[in-house]
Amino acid sequence: MTRTPSMNSAQLIVDNDFEVAKVNKRLFGSFVEHLGRCVYTGIYEPGHPTADVDGFRQDVIDLVRELGATTIRYPGGNFVSGYRWEDGVGPKDQRPRRLDMAWHSTETNQFGLHEMARWLDKVGGNELMEAVNLGTRGLEDAMDLLEYANIPGGTKLSEERRANGADKPFDIRMWCLGNEMDGPWQLGHKSAEDYGTLVSSVAAGMRQMDPDLELVVCGSSSHGMPTFGAWEETVLSKAYDLVDFVSCHAYYQPHDGDMASFLASGVDMDGFIKDVAATIDATKARLKSKHDVFISFDEWNVWYSDAEASRNPEGIGNWPVAPHLLEDVYSVADAVVFGDLMITLLKNADRVHAASLAQLVNVIAPIMTEPGGPAWRQTTFYPFSITARLAKGGTVLEPKLSSSQVSTPKYGDVDGVNAVAVRGADGSVSVFAVNRSLDTPAEFEVRIGEDLRSKAGLTVEAQTLHDDDINAKNTRDAQNRVTPQANDTVEFDAQSGTVKLTLPAVSWTAIYMK
Amino acid sequence: MTRTPSMNSAQLIVDNDFEVAKVNKRLFGSFVEHLGRCVYTGIYEPGHPTADVDGFRQDVIDLVRELGATTIRYPGGNFVSGYRWEDGVGPKDQRPRRLDMAWHSTETNQFGLHEMARWLDKVGGNELMEAVNLGTRGLEDAMDLLEYANIPGGTKLSEERRANGADKPFDIRMWCLGNEMDGPWQLGHKSAEDYGTLVSSVAAGMRQMDPDLELVVCGSSSHGMPTFGAWEETVLSKAYDLVDFVSCHAYYQPHDGDMASFLASGVDMDGFIKDVAATIDATKARLKSKHDVFISFDEWNVWYSDAEASRNPEGIGNWPVAPHLLEDVYSVADAVVFGDLMITLLKNADRVHAASLAQLVNVIAPIMTEPGGPAWRQTTFYPFSITARLAKGGTVLEPKLSSSQVSTPKYGDVDGVNAVAVRGADGSVSVFAVNRSLDTPAEFEVRIGEDLRSKAGLTVEAQTLHDDDINAKNTRDAQNRVTPQANDTVEFDAQSGTVKLTLPAVSWTAIYMK
Amino acid sequence: MTRTPSMNSAQLIVDNDFEVAKVNKRLFGSFVEHLGRCVYTGIYEPGHPTADVDGFRQDVIDLVRELGATTIRYPGGNFVSGYRWEDGVGPKDQRPRRLDMAWHSTETNQFGLHEMARWLDKVGGNELMEAVNLGTRGLEDAMDLLEYANIPGGTKLSEERRANGADKPFDIRMWCLGNEMDGPWQLGHKSAEDYGTLVSSVAAGMRQMDPDLELVVCGSSSHGMPTFGAWEETVLSKAYDLVDFVSCHAYYQPHDGDMASFLASGVDMDGFIKDVAATIDATKARLKSKHDVFISFDEWNVWYSDAEASRNPEGIGNWPVAPHLLEDVYSVADAVVFGDLMITLLKNADRVHAASLAQLVNVIAPIMTEPGGPAWRQTTFYPFSITARLAKGGTVLEPKLSSSQVSTPKYGDVDGVNAVAVRGADGSVSVFAVNRSLDTPAEFEVRIGEDLRSKAGLTVEAQTLHDDDINAKNTRDAQNRVTPQANDTVEFDAQSGTVKLTLPAVSWTAIYMK
Repeated sequence: MTRTPSMNSAQLIVDNDFEVAKVNKRLFGSFVEHLGRCVYTGIYEPGHPTADVDGFRQDVIDLVRELGATTIRYPGGNFVSGYRWEDGVGPKDQRPRRLDMAWHSTETNQFGLHEMARWLDKVGGNELMEAVNLGTRGLEDAMDLLEYANIPGGTKLSEERRANGADKPFDIRMWCLGNEMDGPWQLGHKSAEDYGTLVSSVAAGMRQMDPDLELVVCGSSSHGMPTFGAWEETVLSKAYDLVDFVSCHAYYQPHDGDMASFLASGVDMDGFIKDVAATIDATKARLKSKHDVFISFDEWNVWYSDAEASRNPEGIGNWPVAPHLLEDVYSVADAVVFGDLMITLLKNADRVHAASLAQLVNVIAPIMTEPGGPAWRQTTFYPFSITARLAKGGTVLEPKLSSSQVSTPKYGDVDGVNAVAVRGADGSVSVFAVNRSLDTPAEFEVRIGEDLRSKAGLTVEAQTLHDDDINAKNTRDAQNRVTPQANDTVEFDAQSGTVKLTLPAVSWTAIYMK
Repeated sequence: MTRTPSMNSAQLIVDNDFEVAKVNKRLFGSFVEHLGRCVYTGIYEPGHPTADVDGFRQDVIDLVRELGATTIRYPGGNFVSGYRWEDGVGPKDQRPRRLDMAWHSTETNQFGLHEMARWLDKVGGNELMEAVNLGTRGLEDAMDLLEYANIPGGTKLSEERRANGADKPFDIRMWCLGNEMDGPWQLGHKSAEDYGTLVSSVAAGMRQMDPDLELVVCGSSSHGMPTFGAWEETVLSKAYDLVDFVSCHAYYQPHDGDMASFLASGVDMDGFIKDVAATIDATKARLKSKHDVFISFDEWNVWYSDAEASRNPEGIGNWPVAPHLLEDVYSVADAVVFGDLMITLLKNADRVHAASLAQLVNVIAPIMTEPGGPAWRQTTFYPFSITARLAKGGTVLEPKLSSSQVSTPKYGDVDGVNAVAVRGADGSVSVFAVNRSLDTPAEFEVRIGEDLRSKAGLTVEAQTLHDDDINAKNTRDAQNRVTPQANDTVEFDAQSGTVKLTLPAVSWTAIYMK
Repeated sequence: MTRTPSMNSAQLIVDNDFEVAKVNKRLFGSFVEHLGRCVYTGIYEPGHPTADVDGFRQDVIDLVRELGATTIRYPGGNFVSGYRWEDGVGPKDQRPRRLDMAWHSTETNQFGLHEMARWLDKVGGNELMEAVNLGTRGLEDAMDLLEYANIPGGTKLSEERRANGADKPFDIRMWCLGNEMDGPWQLGHKSAEDYGTLVSSVAAGMRQMDPDLELVVCGSSSHGMPTFGAWEETVLSKAYDLVDFVSCHAYYQPHDGDMASFLASGVDMDGFIKDVAATIDATKARLKSKHDVFISFDEWNVWYSDAEASRNPEGIGNWPVAPHLLEDVYSVADAVVFGDLMITLLKNADRVHAASLAQLVNVIAPIMTEPGGPAWRQTTFYPFSITARLAKGGTVLEPKLSSSQVSTPKYGDVDGVNAVAVRGADGSVSVFAVNRSLDTPAEFEVRIGEDLRSKAGLTVEAQTLHDDDINAKNTRDAQNRVTPQANDTVEFDAQSGTVKLTLPAVSWTAIYMK
């Protein structure tokens, strides 16, 4: 029997001397896949009123800058497993139209590697994370793409890049070695044994060309795969010293109306990370390696994958260009789960050195556009942009958290409040917290140690994302229906370093102390 | 001790309520491989007196129509394992000449996918069953061929097909995923494990493009392969739910003059089918699958594979175009075995949903041609054409057969008479029977149940293929030396539904009741 | 405790009736890899004062003829595992510049298969041993290269060869199926299981085109590989009947100044050969094969692989054309070890039917060149050229050798003198001997049986390579600092067939009796 008191409570204690890890700026990566309208009529729409000479939507560029995304994973995703990178370079009128199996679409190839690199230049401050196709292709093509992208000049492919307008190499540092190769839905999916063999030869070859590459090997495509764990063990056993990251992917949605478990999705993500970290550690020990492998959580989000909008077109003659696909519209509740996932990533910043919000525009995305029309922010935009702004460059502090429990069908009793604190480079302290309870607000107390107080504890501000209607959403016609609001319940005792405030049921809050 | 009485006897009882299965019209498929003169100077011979504007021999088209073959497997066979499908499309004068390892020949590529499709259109009523090359090639090329063949338009490869003259897609339903990949003679042959991995990714990929494809996975290339059974188990374990058919191939010939066993070849084919069916059932049970897999017996015939005519040319400089290869000339005895194989396929119509007589013209074929000269029917033409005509669209009835035994060195004592009955859509009943005895005629009695009698039992005709010289053959200069003749021993008792007739030693007979 | 007497002693007894094997002329093969300056400014340097119309250096051709090398392995080595053979054919101005991962260089492809074949024609009497790329490539490309090289004409690729100036096929007999595929440094390196599967399909396919090819399967890339032995067993189990040779590679250098062990390197090579031979025999027995597989020792030499000169350039932008790489300058001591390796190969002539001195020019080579300048002989040139001249066409006699022992840290006590005798086709007898001792000369007695004496025992000459400075070398400016000298200690007793002479410490000697 679980009683629901009128008010839950939680306490977070942090101290300057107890750190988890520096926040890798790659934690705030995102993902642009050739899927639906992420590229076409998303970031790229020649003829749009705001489009520049390259066909890039300026309104979207502005929102991407505001979002604060860093590393951008490209071009897939499932898409990459049938992709021929050379289709997307050279004169646009000679680029072939191809079928995309992953999303039952026609790929016009009007946007490719050069366009992506140029777009990132215009956004500014971002980094490209490129994926190679290990579905229909293998070593030779991966090497060719790397030569095309990263060799300054003097060879056939690097000179082709230069002739195609990029005099300097793209100098791409981070590479995904295929995508979700364990998934039966993946074109050319493989056994762990076969993928391990292939990826070790591809990783070794790519390093012979560019030794400092940071390579991401495919982990399981979800925590729930039947081969989870065994896959990681087999693949890492073959490729451990050759790679820098193993990937994790996770998407969350309510199942059968179970909102309580949905709101506690961070519990699953936390367990997922810890399971993969354990496999990494065990492999490192077994191989007696000196090398460290980290986690690239390069697909994560709330995704209503059962919904009509996530269905591909059907039929042998139905391969649309840039269809409406996966255009989930996010509620307040979704944004709270989303915020919790970010808190979970931060709490595991010692193991998770990169993460990509999937995806950036239109496709399960924080930014939505209308073709020919406006662009706007979804509810999930705010937890991302605020966390990225406050946490980038900071250090995660060891969180001593105690909280009232809430009951969930899927995870049992879990912390009603999840929270993490980040110390900024300037000495400020930011705390991110969610109240996972469906119906009960929580009294939340934060105590920061003396060292922190001396630098940070002068002023406190808090912003909360919440709505009495947890299904409230932003849409084209109500673009600002949901936005974060100042939390006016903050009480601050500067002497003891204690902040108290109320977290409404189903809410996300950022507290900034400076 | 086996006595040889002066007359054997056999009885076949059928009843309307006891059915095996409907006869799939694909049971009457055949096979056109780029081998010897099957294509060149077989179905395709520009300059031949009967050739049409496309270079197709009209005399052959007429015989193919008469033969009644349905699905045509193409373009191999062993040939496909080194084939590059794109060599055979586009302007003929730009098509490359290639070496064919399988038959030590030069392939001019003057005939390819477009020509095959157009030829089938002209024959009328046939279906193309296309094979992909999994010997020297893999997933990407299989996908490309499927796009070229089946996608209506709007992509690079489908538009190339249209530019090459086929505005509408070929819409090929049935695909062979490689050929005899277990055979050491096969270019790029593989272990069951490796083929299973490859074929599951190819099947999954092709289905992503065209979900309703009917896919044939390679079974063992003969019943006698050392890996028979284990191969099927391993491959099906990896690909069961992704495929619709597993292939069987069988060729029969007398060994060391043992005609008795040769005449009982149907016994081996029957055992082969039952063995593969058992493996399918066991795999389905183990995987708890709801999916059914059937047998495509896509190579079967009498073949004197030890004969001089079956030898490839030798020598690094000796790669002839369309050489005389495998041009077996069939005797009456061969046609009787051939007819028995057809009876065996029909008796297993519940498991065998497709079969391909290998091959159609010149190469171990029912139809022979002379370059620049005539085309004629081999002895085997008749059992095929008559069975196809009478059984197509019908339903195989459960055959209760009792027969005198004949003794064979290879199979021990076997039924001297083999027979099956098919109920036509119009209520007619056709019975196909062989007398396997080398020296003794058989008194054959057919009893049909009352239900059948009411619709079918009015008139009875029987045709028998037989000759006192069991080695009698049809040749260019004696094209009609052997033809079926009316069997004048038929006695019909309409009231009891009983037909009696004599089957000469080494004979094939069709009985038609209407 | 090992005493060092003032003089060691050794005795070699040979008899006409006791033979090891005929000397395969392929034992005197060498190796031209696209590595450093072996090709460019080595054998090929348009503009050099001695260059002919094809750009081949005549001074180098003269030295290669004098060296007496037979079969030339080409184009790698590690280089081949990323090589696209078609880059190196066709008009030179259209050939692509490519990166070479193996040696961190730029390959201009100005020299390719046609140039190699034409160069060998000019040298005269040599044979090309071609390697196919099984790193980034597989079956289809291997078949294409074979068609291009060996098919007389009438097909796309053979006609391309003819159009490119080679009307007649190159008719290459000996092919390496990849290079060192067990090595983690090798582009596309594979497990024994995967390489075995691949190589068996490539070997079978190539034989379908050209049945008489002699195929070399990759053995371990050194005796010291952790997978040595197991690799050979797995690979041969899959491909035994399809191949003719298994490769061995070995390089020797002093480690930590241990010259005593270095001088006994032949002991290791001998053990390596015997280990591989045992695996061949065991596999043959297990498979009940009638087929014989021999050893192709297709990389061997002294190589200071730890030296600065062996390092590849580094850096993403640093891919030089024909850099100075592996340009080891050989001392007298190196030449003595080198001579001992040749003696070891001869002693195993029953198992080693081919060997390639790695390499021919500039790269750990007997011949050095200066771009635009002279070419000269290294110390190792002499043991090779003299052994090749005297032993080619002969028969190795069973050597009954007894010798004082010398102590080595690595191999324990070993024969101080190693020696072998070869009977020439003309009845002459040649003996090759090294004194491995660092400080003590040896009294060496050779006794030849009566049969030999009657034909050979008339005159005796001996040449010794030695210098009081065991580090003495030949350089551009002292090209003849080290050369063999007549050994004036020879005493010959024609009646008893006994030759006696003194072998200085650290020396190599050839004795010729006629």
